[in-house]
Amino acid sequence: MQAANERQARHWTSWLASAAALLLLAACASSHQAAAPAAELPSWNEGPSRAAIVAFVQAVTQPGSADYVAAEDRIAVFDNDGTLWSEQPMYFQVLFALDRVKTMAPQHPEWATRQPFKAAIQSDHAALAKSGQVGLLKIVGATHGQMSVDEFSQSVTQWMAMAKHPRFKQPYTAMTYVPMRELLDYLRANGFKTYIVSGGETEFMRPWTQAAYGIPPEQVIGSGLVTTFETRGGKPVLWRQGKLEFNDDGPGKPVAIQRYIGRRPLLAFGNSDGDLQMLQWTAAGAGKRFAGIVHHTDAQREWAYDRDSDVGRLDRALDEARRNGWTVVDMKTEWRRIYAFEQP
Amino acid sequence: MQAANERQARHWTSWLASAAALLLLAACASSHQAAAPAAELPSWNEGPSRAAIVAFVQAVTQPGSADYVAAEDRIAVFDNDGTLWSEQPMYFQVLFALDRVKTMAPQHPEWATRQPFKAAIQSDHAALAKSGQVGLLKIVGATHGQMSVDEFSQSVTQWMAMAKHPRFKQPYTAMTYVPMRELLDYLRANGFKTYIVSGGETEFMRPWTQAAYGIPPEQVIGSGLVTTFETRGGKPVLWRQGKLEFNDDGPGKPVAIQRYIGRRPLLAFGNSDGDLQMLQWTAAGAGKRFAGIVHHTDAQREWAYDRDSDVGRLDRALDEARRNGWTVVDMKTEWRRIYAFEQP
Repeated sequence: MQAANERQARHWTSWLASAAALLLLAACASSHQAAAPAAELPSWNEGPSRAAIVAFVQAVTQPGSADYVAAEDRIAVFDNDGTLWSEQPMYFQVLFALDRVKTMAPQHPEWATRQPFKAAIQSDHAALAKSGQVGLLKIVGATHGQMSVDEFSQSVTQWMAMAKHPRFKQPYTAMTYVPMRELLDYLRANGFKTYIVSGGETEFMRPWTQAAYGIPPEQVIGSGLVTTFETRGGKPVLWRQGKLEFNDDGPGKPVAIQRYIGRRPLLAFGNSDGDLQMLQWTAAGAGKRFAGIVHHTDAQREWAYDRDSDVGRLDRALDEARRNGWTVVDMKTEWRRIYAFEQP
Repeated sequence: MQAANERQARHWTSWLASAAALLLLAACASSHQAAAPAAELPSWNEGPSRAAIVAFVQAVTQPGSADYVAAEDRIAVFDNDGTLWSEQPMYFQVLFALDRVKTMAPQHPEWATRQPFKAAIQSDHAALAKSGQVGLLKIVGATHGQMSVDEFSQSVTQWMAMAKHPRFKQPYTAMTYVPMRELLDYLRANGFKTYIVSGGETEFMRPWTQAAYGIPPEQVIGSGLVTTFETRGGKPVLWRQGKLEFNDDGPGKPVAIQRYIGRRPLLAFGNSDGDLQMLQWTAAGAGKRFAGIVHHTDAQREWAYDRDSDVGRLDRALDEARRNGWTVVDMKTEWRRIYAFEQP
């Protein structure tokens, strides 16, 4: 009986040991498989986009790989509106301009009776829409121009600290996409230099891109106002005129990339037809290149729009992406989390 | 006698030991004092400019110093022509354009009889001078425009490999100043990011600035031609028109610094009135700043010119420098060596 018990005990002990070993092995294997996803891009679900990104980065960074690219040539460019943060119900820079009209109104009593300023002050969206592009340009000119670069930067910083997004009631810098911030980190950890190439105005972005994306002012490329060097009050000052000098959109994007960076990017990410030429220019480079598109497919957690949208229309670029095998990120299925403020 | 001898021997031994100790001390002290000059800026003589540079860099980089500046804000900007390399008998980019007319002439038989091209082909300097600014712009347009960015870069690289300076019979990249290259290295070793801000054309500089100065393409800011994104032969291409878009000279320099870098420099170096506004903009920043001028005072080893020169005129900026206590480098007395090819 005792011998049988001992035998049985040994049997169980041995079984337990084997089971424990197997469990341990399984745990190791799964932790081994899971290590990469956990460490890099944790907010990306396993899927075609995540796999394509990781395969691309491994190919161009592995010494000895046929696709290896020296670190100094690892340039990655990102559109901002709709690619790194949301752009609905309209570009956040337009919301900034409308808010600024209200803030500046006490210094401009004439605006109370003059369109489109009156409409902006009264949040009269019908009248604003009626004022059209011409009205919008007047508002942008008045809120963005006729001041020094320093004064404008301060007005952006103030707004970013106070303003809340109309739908999510969150600061605008919280409307940045966690998966894309992880992608920026992942690329930089692999020796890439990350740039913003946006249709938005450069000086509207520079005050907050370092904190939001880890991108310093000198790596922010955008549209620009005519700026002049002047002496005011005995001091040299950079003065912003109310006139657009450069529109960093569509075919302007590859031109700006050459002007500012002087190297063709290895990777580009956009979300709209305004990014098409930047993606074409990147994809047409020699060797392995990566062209990616953020596709807004999640009306619950973010927005769903593409071909018929006024803001961020994605039509021709979607066709080209499918024709050329570019990576189209399905936000709804491929992003585990969109914003940092979401409940897990 | 033996005792006396021993005493004397001890005396001498003791004296020798003391002397040796003193010599050793002196050697240590002098090697301590000499360590800095030998390691950093070896081609700069001890003098006011070298002392001002070292004192400035120490002040802004020493943690805990009242003048300490975080590494990301240590921006240093340098003019190129006459500041980092020579600019006589005329800007090297003009010499490049004149040589290019000869290289391109077989593809342009009409140039044989048309001015200013005929004059350039025949090296007829009187006729060239007579064609003036208008003629020069025609030559620049024909040799710099109506080609892709890649084609232009290749033409620069070819020229740099073959062309020789008329006076020194050296490649143009050998006409860079050793003391300034040391200064660039010294600043980078102290956490500065170094930029070129030149009136020369950006794409003329980018092919060779990394090798010559350790400055990558994305840190080269210059004048620019209108460039467009086009499809040629089914491939996207960046096409250089023959028209100037931006003149990075005088008041254009601080504007370009803001546009490209988005931070005010901590240190700026120039050599002519075209650098005045860049120096003013830098010097007017908060905290400690450094504004420096290379003064061409050495007709033997380089050239001597300032107020009356056609190329690189230094007049107003020299007055402002003296009024404001900026650093004016006397090339003749402060630079031990100018070019790397000089006999030591």
